[in-house]
Amino acid sequence: MESEEYPKQDFNTVNRYKHQATYDVETIHSTVNATPVLHVSFASPESPFPVVLPMIGQIGRYPGDESWSCYLHGYVSSRIMKLAFDSESEGMPICVAATKVDGYVLTLTPNSHNYNYRSAVLHGYAKIVDTDAEKLWAMELITNSVVPDRWANSRIPPDGAEMQSTRILKVKIMGASGKVREGVPNDERKDLKREDVLDSVWTGVLPIHESIDVPQPGPYNRVKTVPDHVAKFVKEANVKNKKYAMEAAHKPAPEKRKKKQED
Amino acid sequence: MESEEYPKQDFNTVNRYKHQATYDVETIHSTVNATPVLHVSFASPESPFPVVLPMIGQIGRYPGDESWSCYLHGYVSSRIMKLAFDSESEGMPICVAATKVDGYVLTLTPNSHNYNYRSAVLHGYAKIVDTDAEKLWAMELITNSVVPDRWANSRIPPDGAEMQSTRILKVKIMGASGKVREGVPNDERKDLKREDVLDSVWTGVLPIHESIDVPQPGPYNRVKTVPDHVAKFVKEANVKNKKYAMEAAHKPAPEKRKKKQED
Repeated sequence: MESEEYPKQDFNTVNRYKHQATYDVETIHSTVNATPVLHVSFASPESPFPVVLPMIGQIGRYPGDESWSCYLHGYVSSRIMKLAFDSESEGMPICVAATKVDGYVLTLTPNSHNYNYRSAVLHGYAKIVDTDAEKLWAMELITNSVVPDRWANSRIPPDGAEMQSTRILKVKIMGASGKVREGVPNDERKDLKREDVLDSVWTGVLPIHESIDVPQPGPYNRVKTVPDHVAKFVKEANVKNKKYAMEAAHKPAPEKRKKKQED
Repeated sequence: MESEEYPKQDFNTVNRYKHQATYDVETIHSTVNATPVLHVSFASPESPFPVVLPMIGQIGRYPGDESWSCYLHGYVSSRIMKLAFDSESEGMPICVAATKVDGYVLTLTPNSHNYNYRSAVLHGYAKIVDTDAEKLWAMELITNSVVPDRWANSRIPPDGAEMQSTRILKVKIMGASGKVREGVPNDERKDLKREDVLDSVWTGVLPIHESIDVPQPGPYNRVKTVPDHVAKFVKEANVKNKKYAMEAAHKPAPEKRKKKQED
């Protein structure tokens, strides 16, 4: 049975702004799955600095697997792939990060300014997917995460050369945490008492969301009408994104609701 | 004088899809500066996994400094701040990553699908800003990077307690690289020869951009009209974001333009 929360461990416990922290599996997974680019970080033996690569990914459970994994497909992958191949043990230790900004929260004073946002971080061990069956399954999962049903509406299956050249990382999730801020502005009492400040500074939320604009056919496109799977996706994604940002802009401020617990 | 390109070094050289790589200072800085949340990665002595934190940041040059730095302000900062304080030498080695998605590029076959996007990665050493003058300068820089002129239009200056509780990281940039993909779809010759595929699969770009929705006044706002600095920002940001994504959707495909160089 699915656990509803990721356990708190040393490496994933949020130590500040605890009232915004979450270990809820659904919140964390949905943040990762709704983020078009994930930032994947790992140590490089050749450099003093960690490496971060932008990759496309999706959390899924392969039929027969006991737990969820994060599947990653990356454009700049030679280094990460090499490291994941070399590893003989459990895999390469990596961190996967996703953040969505839902609004700018403008308050009376710069120090109280905030974002409405959702962020998630996964820690785990990455290995290369080594069977064609699982690779194909993950390719379909990732393609359809960008545009639902796109897989079936394109030229499939991938041929031998395409299967050969595609590499998918599978991250066994060892821990995860998230942070969510939504709500109206919240200022400190000292500023809320000042009539001059209240009378002169506009406070509110600027809701922010991804917009998908009118589909632009490419130069060799012959299909005259934008197909249903694309049109439906564009429409639904825009409605959903806008709705989330607007609702977040009107919820009670979390700092107000939970400040007492933390103090 | 400003160097126009970051030098290629072992840790920042892009090894795959080289035709999309850039070391151009302006492209890299503008990508970082246009990204509302940066992902900051560093090694943690207590964990096998790297840490990634979402932070707000901006590249700037403090008066008197010889080179550009990246200033970071973070909500979850106790760990990173502790590490940056402990370090007696040049600072804590970190990696700062920024990615903006400008469109989904839908092609004939899943393997050729792509994003229009801009990404940038900075490698450098982070230290805590330790003078009030530079801290104040960086706070203004970062606040105004979210909404231009917001600093002067809010209750300033920060008081003693606010200065005390705010910590800013300054990253000395040791190297950087970026990747940019813009343009129409591009498929392989084998698919462009297939009439059945061309006749059945829609190809094109779905332009994607951040939209800032109508400003939503908060519960204790008394300023009846949305002030100019906010209204102007919302309008200009929306026009600029949309324009970039739409133009990117119509440029020639980079794979086509530069494939020969790489082969």
